[in-house]
Amino acid sequence: MRDCHRELAKWLVAAGAETRIDAAGNLRAFYVAEEPSAPRLLLGSHLDTVPNAGTYDGVLGVVIAVALLENLERRRLPFGIEVVGFSEEEGVRFGAPFIGSRALVGRLDEAFLDCQDRNKISIRTAIKDFGLDATEIPNAMISEDTLAYLEFHIGQGPVLDSLGLPLGVVEAIVGQTRIEFVFVGHTNHAGTTPMHLRHDAVVGAAEWIVAVERAAQSEPGLVATVGQIEAVPGTTNVIPGEAHASLDLRHPSDEIRLRAAKVLTELAEEIAERRGLTVQKSKLLSQAAVEMDGFLVGEIENAMRVAGCQPRRMVSGAGHDAMILAEKVPAAMIFLRSPGGISHDPAESILLEDVAKAIECGSHLLEQLASSSEFQKRMCRA
Amino acid sequence: MRDCHRELAKWLVAAGAETRIDAAGNLRAFYVAEEPSAPRLLLGSHLDTVPNAGTYDGVLGVVIAVALLENLERRRLPFGIEVVGFSEEEGVRFGAPFIGSRALVGRLDEAFLDCQDRNKISIRTAIKDFGLDATEIPNAMISEDTLAYLEFHIGQGPVLDSLGLPLGVVEAIVGQTRIEFVFVGHTNHAGTTPMHLRHDAVVGAAEWIVAVERAAQSEPGLVATVGQIEAVPGTTNVIPGEAHASLDLRHPSDEIRLRAAKVLTELAEEIAERRGLTVQKSKLLSQAAVEMDGFLVGEIENAMRVAGCQPRRMVSGAGHDAMILAEKVPAAMIFLRSPGGISHDPAESILLEDVAKAIECGSHLLEQLASSSEFQKRMCRA
Repeated sequence: MRDCHRELAKWLVAAGAETRIDAAGNLRAFYVAEEPSAPRLLLGSHLDTVPNAGTYDGVLGVVIAVALLENLERRRLPFGIEVVGFSEEEGVRFGAPFIGSRALVGRLDEAFLDCQDRNKISIRTAIKDFGLDATEIPNAMISEDTLAYLEFHIGQGPVLDSLGLPLGVVEAIVGQTRIEFVFVGHTNHAGTTPMHLRHDAVVGAAEWIVAVERAAQSEPGLVATVGQIEAVPGTTNVIPGEAHASLDLRHPSDEIRLRAAKVLTELAEEIAERRGLTVQKSKLLSQAAVEMDGFLVGEIENAMRVAGCQPRRMVSGAGHDAMILAEKVPAAMIFLRSPGGISHDPAESILLEDVAKAIECGSHLLEQLASSSEFQKRMCRA
Repeated sequence: MRDCHRELAKWLVAAGAETRIDAAGNLRAFYVAEEPSAPRLLLGSHLDTVPNAGTYDGVLGVVIAVALLENLERRRLPFGIEVVGFSEEEGVRFGAPFIGSRALVGRLDEAFLDCQDRNKISIRTAIKDFGLDATEIPNAMISEDTLAYLEFHIGQGPVLDSLGLPLGVVEAIVGQTRIEFVFVGHTNHAGTTPMHLRHDAVVGAAEWIVAVERAAQSEPGLVATVGQIEAVPGTTNVIPGEAHASLDLRHPSDEIRLRAAKVLTELAEEIAERRGLTVQKSKLLSQAAVEMDGFLVGEIENAMRVAGCQPRRMVSGAGHDAMILAEKVPAAMIFLRSPGGISHDPAESILLEDVAKAIECGSHLLEQLASSSEFQKRMCRA
């Protein structure tokens, strides 16, 4: 992460911005407006990704923001531009996502900082170990004159690729539920315990995982994933007394998502009861679906047309920092086609011409906003 | 393990034996015969157990052997007694069991010493790190005049408890197959990949785990356990591209066990194919069922009757060091009742009166063997 900060900061400074690392480990760069006291537009994305991931998830959006500054060739706009490279969007280490962007909206609070990784190291301690001061987190809040947040990101799904389109504009981000389930049975000897006397937590979890897939397949738009599964004690010759399984559940409709979470929890309880197991649940996340800003979505569609791209409105199946920023400021996102829909995998790729189109579209968008009467009004209010 | 060796050695020396640690980390104690050159009887069990286990698995058999020496009150028998506390019977660390007892029969060879734990540390290196010299392993072989091997062990199953019997005599040990399966699909984003476009390795493994249970339930005497299951990359919001699952399969009939291994492997392949996954297999163990020595089984039954216990012949569902020793010398085992059939669990227990019966039975057995004409003949041949 230090190398990443250093390299990006070098490029940002060369493009005419000033940089700092905030107390939540976000890279912050400010490109000043014609008038130094003018309000600002935020451009950003995240710098982390998942283990064994590809090259583009997150960081491409920050690199495109750098390119947009470079394209200005030090020309100043009526608004400043703040580029943000977020830390810890994925939630890999602490099981809790959006750590960096939470700091920008004042939601990285004391309780959240107590979240621990698997080695019992808290977010607070991790921040300290990185050489930052968690007590400074309130200073990471976005400035009050922030006009909007705009994020470029790979689409990570098959939609744009299947339509043959380079870019999409996000009109909403799906809601997400994350729950950890622990099935609890009885540890016992794998050789001496007849099948009918077992309370095997892993077989219970396995039956539930198959049922989760079936339930998600029967509800259009619902996606359900068990990304983590672990047996305890996890030894070849011991019947597992515990099975830990994660559930990630998403749907554009909060109502359908919440109902599905209830149904899948009840399913786990039914399976557990029938097998003489118990099941414990802990909810790690319940994030409502988030609408993007209608004005910005319209402006992005215009900019796409000017760049020669057919605009396509989409619902994002992935959570994004834009979802968090949208709590405080108008937010929007531009997706780049993901060939084969492959993401979070070393085979993740992009097309060079799509990146060129994204930068072209972004530059048009900046010009449009600079001359938009609506955006002028927003600037006066800010 | 060092503390365990130290404590047991103290007791063994007090009972009149000499002790050493062999190059495979086994505790070896020798209680000399009336004639120092007389052949020897082996008494032993293992000192390791599984993670989060109970108190008695393995080590109780060594403690009973110590008690049998103590009961002799330094009186010498026509044969010597060697007490062995085996290292690494379970195979937890290296996935390969019976490391200690393999050394006694000359099967802890160079290839086996290359087995690695999850941190890529080989058995050879672990032996060195413990302060032992792996090149000395040939000196851990049993001496050529070894007459027999006898092992006391908790039964670890519900059979004796359900019959209300304190002790059982093992006439055979079931065969075991251990295979690691790796289901391979495609890692992808949990939010943006519709259900019908997924190749989720964990759901494939889960479907197989449920089918393994069903298959084992329909074959009398067969037990099948998936004790380990792991998702790769193992992140809440990533569709797992790999699932690692272990299979432990046991049956008294080698034919039925081998057929079941074939059926369950084919089942994994069918499920994988239907889901657009592939499956890799690596066989970690294929151990044939082992008969115990008929003469010793008969002598144990006699000793049980003298001790006032109804003798009960049993098939051991668990593998034991006796299975390995049986390759070289006549071997037999005495099981102690496991209340509730609970083992490999902190709730594992024994009844004090059963241990007293086991020691009483063992003492009678030593006297019988000392005066048995058949055992005399064996001693002359040795």
